[in-house]
Amino acid sequence: MGVRMENRIIDKLIHIVGRDGVLCTPEDLAAYSYDGTFAEGIPEAVVLPPTTEQTAEIVKVAAEHRIPLIARGMGSGLAAGSIPVRAGGIVVSFTRMNRILEMDTANSTVLVQAGIVTADLQAEVEKLGLFYPPDPSSIRHSTIGGNIACNAGGPRCLKYGVTGNYVLGLTVVLADGRILKTGGKPIKDVTGYNLNALFTSSEGTLGLITEALLRLVTRPRFTKTALAEFDSLNNASRAVNAILAEGIVPASLELMDQTAIACIEEAMHLGLTTDVDASLIIETDGADEQTVMREAEAAGRICRENGARTVKVAQNEAERAGLWKARRSISPSLARKAPNKLGEDITVPRSAIPEVVQQLRAISAKYGLPVVIFGHAGDGNLHPNILFDKRRHEEWEKVEKMVREIFEVALAQGGTLSGEHGVGVLKRPYFEQALGSVSVEVQRRIKQALDPMNILNPGKMFQD
Amino acid sequence: MGVRMENRIIDKLIHIVGRDGVLCTPEDLAAYSYDGTFAEGIPEAVVLPPTTEQTAEIVKVAAEHRIPLIARGMGSGLAAGSIPVRAGGIVVSFTRMNRILEMDTANSTVLVQAGIVTADLQAEVEKLGLFYPPDPSSIRHSTIGGNIACNAGGPRCLKYGVTGNYVLGLTVVLADGRILKTGGKPIKDVTGYNLNALFTSSEGTLGLITEALLRLVTRPRFTKTALAEFDSLNNASRAVNAILAEGIVPASLELMDQTAIACIEEAMHLGLTTDVDASLIIETDGADEQTVMREAEAAGRICRENGARTVKVAQNEAERAGLWKARRSISPSLARKAPNKLGEDITVPRSAIPEVVQQLRAISAKYGLPVVIFGHAGDGNLHPNILFDKRRHEEWEKVEKMVREIFEVALAQGGTLSGEHGVGVLKRPYFEQALGSVSVEVQRRIKQALDPMNILNPGKMFQD
Repeated sequence: MGVRMENRIIDKLIHIVGRDGVLCTPEDLAAYSYDGTFAEGIPEAVVLPPTTEQTAEIVKVAAEHRIPLIARGMGSGLAAGSIPVRAGGIVVSFTRMNRILEMDTANSTVLVQAGIVTADLQAEVEKLGLFYPPDPSSIRHSTIGGNIACNAGGPRCLKYGVTGNYVLGLTVVLADGRILKTGGKPIKDVTGYNLNALFTSSEGTLGLITEALLRLVTRPRFTKTALAEFDSLNNASRAVNAILAEGIVPASLELMDQTAIACIEEAMHLGLTTDVDASLIIETDGADEQTVMREAEAAGRICRENGARTVKVAQNEAERAGLWKARRSISPSLARKAPNKLGEDITVPRSAIPEVVQQLRAISAKYGLPVVIFGHAGDGNLHPNILFDKRRHEEWEKVEKMVREIFEVALAQGGTLSGEHGVGVLKRPYFEQALGSVSVEVQRRIKQALDPMNILNPGKMFQD
Repeated sequence: MGVRMENRIIDKLIHIVGRDGVLCTPEDLAAYSYDGTFAEGIPEAVVLPPTTEQTAEIVKVAAEHRIPLIARGMGSGLAAGSIPVRAGGIVVSFTRMNRILEMDTANSTVLVQAGIVTADLQAEVEKLGLFYPPDPSSIRHSTIGGNIACNAGGPRCLKYGVTGNYVLGLTVVLADGRILKTGGKPIKDVTGYNLNALFTSSEGTLGLITEALLRLVTRPRFTKTALAEFDSLNNASRAVNAILAEGIVPASLELMDQTAIACIEEAMHLGLTTDVDASLIIETDGADEQTVMREAEAAGRICRENGARTVKVAQNEAERAGLWKARRSISPSLARKAPNKLGEDITVPRSAIPEVVQQLRAISAKYGLPVVIFGHAGDGNLHPNILFDKRRHEEWEKVEKMVREIFEVALAQGGTLSGEHGVGVLKRPYFEQALGSVSVEVQRRIKQALDPMNILNPGKMFQD
């Protein structure tokens, strides 16, 4: 198959979604050739279906001609999962399927199309006193469909769980164009295999998710946020374990290491103390103000007992916003330190964080490139970010070696490749090393069973 | 295949697990021919492996000779999932694999063999201040392996989630005897398909679960339990929704209807008011005594605002135990009312409970057999129990019709067949009606991909 799609196929696609639903100029194709990584791949066509039924018709055309289909939300992925890797293929963009189809306040559920931006969904449900907790950093420029395909996480997932914990039902277009409905409004359901969980985190390789029925919770009315600064990252990590051991489950327990704090302060001038080894942002929330306050106070006390130099509790919404501004500024701040960054997403058993950080620092020293460390400490999910200049070939070579060593550190500590970004293309080379050959073969068999012609996002997760 | 196993196969099994690990006298086989239902099926042999490796060797023998393998824990299943339904086959009993292999307090995880009794596991982890929340009624006579195979629930699952929410990793013997390891200690993991969730609730049809790595939480130190009595079940149901809408998530929100309360009081003489239409048992728990108390008070206030006649808060551990004694006495109490009972396990959207209860009462009136209703109201999971005398053929015929109508009520209200018991044999006839043909075919393909010879618990879930 060449990179130029046959006109008769283009015509079939136009017949399904109309002329304005099919993009195939070089400029348009280029706009759908990248994501949040360094990867690129030009599709042969981009189709923007407005409904599940039209998506199903598109899949039937692709199946007939054995054309790869790459599902795409907002293209914010961090593992190149929505990039065509084989020459060509059809990118199916869900950005026109961005509506809320049903809001059920009696059962705290919402039915949405896959292309809705997560922050837009959250804003709508919060108007009704409800709450959709998962909060990936990309929340304003990623879609629910993409969040589900990668089982996205975020700071609040310590208390509330990840995207998959909120998926009650899915509408999925299968590889042959048939439409599958999974799950439903009941909270508990053991009728058959857990297809919700199978399609969640399947990265577009088993079906195209077009709609999702999501569980909501009641919006927490009160929030208390604190910053705890430590002279030793080990102590910060001990404090995380001690807080959880007391039975306190903060919404968030975010770790920033010294390099992260220094980057933020240099870029933002927020008045952060830059000579600490690590900081924790601790947020408690809930329905009862006194409870939220008591939990925040207890967490602060535990931090001090575990060697925190200072614990500052935000006294008002402005101070709270300041703390989160610091946390959210890490990634943009890094851009001022170096032309490029590569952010990884390892997860490790919580207790291994101090050892892992020490080894990440050793990798940084070995290759002479900064590694900024931050992440969701309560979940053992760290984002080591390597800062470098991609134009310097020798730095890019170092980065590739460093990534391999970072994964090796995670795996040696009983961790894994990804807590929330997915495998996509970038972690394919390490997939079997992480999971073992039996697991990979089981997964290949499932893929083969549901997509025998391998047209759904081929070249992702599995090595060819 | 006859029901008498060939000696050469018996010899192979004895070679693997020793003579005392293979049972094949008629008396022994009879002991493994039933579960918690009316179903029966005699295996050709029972094997009791002590390790994963020996389980794998057993599976290889079965695969070579194409003999069905039926995994079994304590045989407490309520859907006939662990009963041989084809003539013969090998029951693999995990009761000798009942050890805790590793307790990791730093990461709040425990690694267990599949045959450990759930209550035994809970007692052990609670000694260390940890907590394994899922609490099926069968907790003292069911195993973790069986709980995982059915994704068991229980009263506490409203706040804490079901068994599947605690499965971090599994060791599974596949249909060809290979050993699969899934997951690991990291709380978040999106490296590949969610195999933990696929094997959880697979009812022994995709692999034999031999070990499980489970997530634990900190043991809640304080508990407050209340009984709210309502003149109208509708009001009780409204109160459930109102409590959750306020952002209060009790550990348990258990509903008992008038028939259930009357049965308990008649059998146990606990002093329950029997002229109420419904009662709720509400339990709040947590790390902070004041918070737990405040939540209990708020729940009580909401019940009164929604028409509760009385709200009684247990003032001490004896009173609390009394309330739970009432709840746990329902099933045994029913045995005094009628020779037999058939307990169902439908789940519906929470808001549909009043309508569903009304329709269940209509079914009871139509057939002239009592239907006792209780269950986990916060989750929309109801256990309608039909009381009857199996010796009377016409009553058994009525029961079969009533079960069909109960499922039809649940499905019509957007509910499903099972919240925690599974499909097994008993719900097979309704499986496709509940899920649709596309879903069933997807599940068949997964089954076929992982068990191409259909030797793992054949005849379960899917109609032949």
